[in-house]
Amino acid sequence: MTHPLRLAPGPVDLSALSTEETPDFDGGKSEGKEELAELGPELADLQEKLFAEGRSGGRRSVLLVLQGMDTSGKGGTVRHTMGLVDPQGVSITAFGPPTAEELEHDFLWRIEQQLPEPGRIGVFDRSHYEDVLIGRVRALAGPEEIERRYEAINDFEARVAASGTTIVKCLLHISAAEQKERLAKRLDRPDKHWKFQPGDIDDRSLWPAFQEAYEIALERTNTEAAPWYVVPADRKWYRNLAVARLLVDTLREMDLAWPEADFDVAEQQRRLRDADPLG
Amino acid sequence: MTHPLRLAPGPVDLSALSTEETPDFDGGKSEGKEELAELGPELADLQEKLFAEGRSGGRRSVLLVLQGMDTSGKGGTVRHTMGLVDPQGVSITAFGPPTAEELEHDFLWRIEQQLPEPGRIGVFDRSHYEDVLIGRVRALAGPEEIERRYEAINDFEARVAASGTTIVKCLLHISAAEQKERLAKRLDRPDKHWKFQPGDIDDRSLWPAFQEAYEIALERTNTEAAPWYVVPADRKWYRNLAVARLLVDTLREMDLAWPEADFDVAEQQRRLRDADPLG
Repeated sequence: MTHPLRLAPGPVDLSALSTEETPDFDGGKSEGKEELAELGPELADLQEKLFAEGRSGGRRSVLLVLQGMDTSGKGGTVRHTMGLVDPQGVSITAFGPPTAEELEHDFLWRIEQQLPEPGRIGVFDRSHYEDVLIGRVRALAGPEEIERRYEAINDFEARVAASGTTIVKCLLHISAAEQKERLAKRLDRPDKHWKFQPGDIDDRSLWPAFQEAYEIALERTNTEAAPWYVVPADRKWYRNLAVARLLVDTLREMDLAWPEADFDVAEQQRRLRDADPLG
Repeated sequence: MTHPLRLAPGPVDLSALSTEETPDFDGGKSEGKEELAELGPELADLQEKLFAEGRSGGRRSVLLVLQGMDTSGKGGTVRHTMGLVDPQGVSITAFGPPTAEELEHDFLWRIEQQLPEPGRIGVFDRSHYEDVLIGRVRALAGPEEIERRYEAINDFEARVAASGTTIVKCLLHISAAEQKERLAKRLDRPDKHWKFQPGDIDDRSLWPAFQEAYEIALERTNTEAAPWYVVPADRKWYRNLAVARLLVDTLREMDLAWPEADFDVAEQQRRLRDADPLG
């Protein structure tokens, strides 16, 4: 059965996709938080098995790509999902504007360097998709270069997937009205001022252009090797739950198991009991 | 008042330092776990303030160095303390045997690259101390080079501290008997087999040599800029609590506060209300 948040193939109309519904979940906020907490132990167990596999010669890993408009909750999603597992098994990268050195290379150069090692769950808070989103909206690259990038991304992601990394891409989909509320809240609370910049308000004039850029990017890069999920994100609790569920589903499908001992367990037990070098 | 776990200056006798007492804590396991959980929100709040400061131009960071014999619980300490805060604000590095490339450089080269960025809590699971511990015990470097390294470490740590990084170094101090129990448990549980290698038993013959190497290293590098704490670690719950408390104390002393807005809040509130580009 197709996952309810899996983006269907073909042209994308984001305005037709809900930002506030809670697909595949009947309860409200408190039930949603409860289910998230209940998923924690399984997610932690699966993550540890993946880590153990990586330490035992396995090559597999998971990459969660989070995209979304400002205030869509990429950081909050990381905190509430990755906060459930051992931080040693996770590598989180927040991609900002490229540095001078990064600009001297192809746009995928800095991305490749942050791919998760075997056994890890990698999380990208923004990613190479910025190079076809803000890149397109602010014309940081010409139309031909933007066009080239969609295929470059697909080739890159296919190669990464083939090397053992399961890629899950999520658009945290919020409404413009919800963004306005979140910006207002950042202004109302002194402990949130550091997250606000006056330019955030100006940027709202680019909302339609960004939605269009997302629609094109999602359509062009929604592959079997690296599928897109559109997560209704106006409700934070549902967004967190939906991404945690996706991670659990992804890890379950990997059929993870504790690595077999490559030594004779009984023999080592005897040694430790009867031949301890410390007596 | 001196911290109860702070290593006193002068010669170190690890056999005289308890591995099982619970300094500065009267309760038992359940009370210890309760206090750790209660510290969580404050630790998370302090960590977020540090992160906000780093995003607002601040240069400060924290570096927690964890050392200890095999099975002393370095990984468990990371999970139970850093698991209380936003994983985005933490950078964790586990140092294994140096690679061929790393061996071509000075021993501090790979360490320098993993220092926490401003606003972060960095955690080293093993560190440059391995280069005077296993380095000495297995004679991976000559006596003169080992001798040189103590001073090189002090110079390095003083420079790192002067640049804004508060360094906290912890020896997780376990007894040889406790290590034996933990190895036995790893053998008894199939979900722990991946953590065991037969060499772990052989290495117990080096226990006295490692204790001596620790005593020398701790004495030589117990500076004001980067002090050592010896954490009794036979009881996991106490070890976790003691390290969490140390982190809370460290962050409290930094007098962290939410960054001041560098814009006129009321003006931005008016703009968002009356001049929203999206209408």
